[in-house]
Amino acid sequence: MSTKKIINNPDDVVSEMMEGFILANEKYVTKHPEVNGVISKNPRKGKVALVIGGGSGHEPMFAGFVGKGLADAAACGNIFASPDPNTIYETASEVNDGKGVLFVYGNYAGDNLNFDMGEEFLNDEGIPTAHVRVMDDVASAPRSRAFDRRGIAGDVFVVKIAGAACDAGLSLEEAAGVTQKASGNIRSIGIATEPGQIPGLDKPIFELGENEIEYGMGLHGEPGVKRTEMQPADELVTVLYNHIIPDFDLRAGDEVCVLVNSLGSTTMIEMSIVYRKLRELLDRDGIKVYDSDLNHYCTSQEMGGFSITLFKLDEELKKYYDAPCYCPYYAKEGK
Amino acid sequence: MSTKKIINNPDDVVSEMMEGFILANEKYVTKHPEVNGVISKNPRKGKVALVIGGGSGHEPMFAGFVGKGLADAAACGNIFASPDPNTIYETASEVNDGKGVLFVYGNYAGDNLNFDMGEEFLNDEGIPTAHVRVMDDVASAPRSRAFDRRGIAGDVFVVKIAGAACDAGLSLEEAAGVTQKASGNIRSIGIATEPGQIPGLDKPIFELGENEIEYGMGLHGEPGVKRTEMQPADELVTVLYNHIIPDFDLRAGDEVCVLVNSLGSTTMIEMSIVYRKLRELLDRDGIKVYDSDLNHYCTSQEMGGFSITLFKLDEELKKYYDAPCYCPYYAKEGK
Repeated sequence: MSTKKIINNPDDVVSEMMEGFILANEKYVTKHPEVNGVISKNPRKGKVALVIGGGSGHEPMFAGFVGKGLADAAACGNIFASPDPNTIYETASEVNDGKGVLFVYGNYAGDNLNFDMGEEFLNDEGIPTAHVRVMDDVASAPRSRAFDRRGIAGDVFVVKIAGAACDAGLSLEEAAGVTQKASGNIRSIGIATEPGQIPGLDKPIFELGENEIEYGMGLHGEPGVKRTEMQPADELVTVLYNHIIPDFDLRAGDEVCVLVNSLGSTTMIEMSIVYRKLRELLDRDGIKVYDSDLNHYCTSQEMGGFSITLFKLDEELKKYYDAPCYCPYYAKEGK
Repeated sequence: MSTKKIINNPDDVVSEMMEGFILANEKYVTKHPEVNGVISKNPRKGKVALVIGGGSGHEPMFAGFVGKGLADAAACGNIFASPDPNTIYETASEVNDGKGVLFVYGNYAGDNLNFDMGEEFLNDEGIPTAHVRVMDDVASAPRSRAFDRRGIAGDVFVVKIAGAACDAGLSLEEAAGVTQKASGNIRSIGIATEPGQIPGLDKPIFELGENEIEYGMGLHGEPGVKRTEMQPADELVTVLYNHIIPDFDLRAGDEVCVLVNSLGSTTMIEMSIVYRKLRELLDRDGIKVYDSDLNHYCTSQEMGGFSITLFKLDEELKKYYDAPCYCPYYAKEGK
């Protein structure tokens, strides 16, 4: 947790961040002239537009996932706050190319409300829309209330599949269907070791004791499932694995993509050690790893900790997963 | 700075990290059977082999820069410690394909000594070698003693150019020449706001007061040029810019690539705000930005702070910069 944020006036954090991010990535994206919408410069024409979005503060998600074979635009809110309906509407209008708009975002009350309103504005103009809410965090609600679950790093895989499905020329209904299937096949759970801090605020997002960790804590400090003393990495991973697997009906022979996502300050060394144990458990259970990724994709400022995401594949999902994509923060060569 | 490192036995950190990293990236890399060498699975044949390396703890540099159009292998040391000569020799032997080996590494006494010995072992077997030492940190020695300067995030651009030059089929001498030119055209300087911590050690790498920062501090806590109170981002960037520019003979009309590199816990929001001011200064001075990048490439665990790197291009360097490359941590589409 850092009190020394590299910012200017705290009130200008999001506008200055948007300005700098767009300038740094000007080969790939431009900013909507009026709202905080990040727009792809080179969208494929004549396809369903994929629009993602949510609160800022989780970079590179969402703005960093606009690109070829990925999102056509991202509607960005203030830090940890949903973009407003007008931002969503204006951003989507900019990239709609006559085939409708598919929205992908995390399942949070504010996002749900605002994206629904943004969709209504579009529908009022005759633009068809659909949405898929990411709800991968198994710690955030029991399986019987899966529709109350929060979206965390599973966003990455959902955006990947949605981007490829839109890129392949699927109809809005078809693209939404594939994306919904992907979303339903994804489970995540995280662990928090240290809080992050919102630029301009004096206090960390949450508090943890000196040697305390919390299983299942959300990206905004939402309560998890258990606080304990710090444990060795292998023990942490085993506990998380044992939370995910029963939720999932994974069987020996199933194939998954794996993401170990740092929440901010957790390092590649630590992610690698986490992956080592995770792979041992997957191998033990006969679950095949189709691809894997260790990265900082969905963060909460400099929060310490990580999440594990498993994405169960079938032949159709593999096809979209294997499609090439490119943006500076997420690139796949394709098969 | 986190005391809650996600590790098992501290003595096993590097071996478990290597194991997990290789497994997670098994599509792209394999491990040398005997030493901590990360070897590309798909090297282009019949070209000069590019071998990079250095101490661990700066991930994704170096292991994360093995890939297509990038390094063929990375020799990895313990945390903040050079790989030993045998590791360098064995790793290079594995990827030598009859055209010789080009080494790129940071200019540190231990690395220089060990890489020189590794080269001697190869030369004794008749394998020709060359090396380029990265010495981009303008804060680490005055211009008159530029050969004493440390290598920091400038590594990224040097590896990019060296990888492309080897990939293009240049001879060892030619590839080393282009790479040396690139290295000579790169200047960096950083700022530290918070220390990182080596896994298994009780104390942070260095100490800073509650509201204190240090300009020019090295990646291992080496002394910088000045400690002050924390400043607004625009002020920090201006001071850094004014350190780099006089060292560099940049003129209006020159073209540069820009890298803002987080040292660990500094966020994309902060990097974007840094870039915004940096771009304003470059624009003011008529220095054109050819490309830019905000990322965590060369870290020091969860250290707070960032570095700015400027890479002056000419037509030859642009050609190699524009060549496509791919690894999970650094991908360019090419032109």
